[in-house]
Amino acid sequence: MISAFSRLPGVGPKSAERFSYFLLRSGGEVAEELRASIQAALQSTKVCSQCFNLDEQDPCSICSDEGRDQQVMLVVEDPRDVTAFEESGFRGLYHVLQGRVSDLEGIGPEDLTIGPLFERLSRLRSSEVCLATSPDLEGEGTAQILAERLAERGLAVSRIARGIPAGSSITQVSKSILADALEGRRKLS
Amino acid sequence: MISAFSRLPGVGPKSAERFSYFLLRSGGEVAEELRASIQAALQSTKVCSQCFNLDEQDPCSICSDEGRDQQVMLVVEDPRDVTAFEESGFRGLYHVLQGRVSDLEGIGPEDLTIGPLFERLSRLRSSEVCLATSPDLEGEGTAQILAERLAERGLAVSRIARGIPAGSSITQVSKSILADALEGRRKLS
Repeated sequence: MISAFSRLPGVGPKSAERFSYFLLRSGGEVAEELRASIQAALQSTKVCSQCFNLDEQDPCSICSDEGRDQQVMLVVEDPRDVTAFEESGFRGLYHVLQGRVSDLEGIGPEDLTIGPLFERLSRLRSSEVCLATSPDLEGEGTAQILAERLAERGLAVSRIARGIPAGSSITQVSKSILADALEGRRKLS
Repeated sequence: MISAFSRLPGVGPKSAERFSYFLLRSGGEVAEELRASIQAALQSTKVCSQCFNLDEQDPCSICSDEGRDQQVMLVVEDPRDVTAFEESGFRGLYHVLQGRVSDLEGIGPEDLTIGPLFERLSRLRSSEVCLATSPDLEGEGTAQILAERLAERGLAVSRIARGIPAGSSITQVSKSILADALEGRRKLS
């Protein structure tokens, strides 16, 4: 149990030991609840065959919602990104890549859900693909590879904005963020 | 001395007391160095009559540098912002507003260096004014007031980009930052 807990992100052997002894001391009830909830989640969670989001149904609740705006498809790395953009108010479609291109981890474009993405795009009425991978090294690299492949197919491709996070002060942010904010400056009408 | 130190930003009465006793205990040498350096800085620092930056000369080293790109003028709140954008690699002109419009602090547009800004713009060859106030409530308000006044004069006006700070992950940033990043998304060519 200790070694299983220590495989969770951010949990070291000390924490894993603490969790384990807590469960053993708590007389079985808490442990049983945790075990059952893990089992239930595993059984009820499906990967959407359309967008590769995680949901309790397939197609997922977003793909099967006819009221969604099909114009813009947001391409993200991870199902958690879908949740984050939903909370930000986006109401279009998503496509989950299930990762990012990473030389270090040996993940190539062929390991991502790029094939199904093109298949969906040829079928749906989306007029814009917005690349929403993280603005870090591997996320930018993944976006660049996708942008090139999408451009070949004559699709409108956009990239989420890098810049200064709303609410922060000029003097608080790094020089690379300031350079981004300047490069991405927008004309005001 | 304690009360003078506690007027520094982020210094409470306890720290001010600690500073003061440290200076008194250190036998006068450190205290004298601090006193002399404050006096020297006060005497040698001038406000630039052109851009209102702080420098040891007037016009400041930026305004008097003929090699600067005069096309883009960056309007900032504070001299520290000039330093930050210089470090980010910007090589155009600046204009320091000496603050921001703030209802709470009773600072109106007339308290800022907006008059001299217009006077400079009518004299210089700048073709674009980029508003680089902070992307928070008062900074955005100040940018909006300036944008309206500048538009009346037929000048090209831009605003630095809000978005996700470079290097951060989608799942780390707030929903309002994600909404900004989506709204500000850019077409890739």
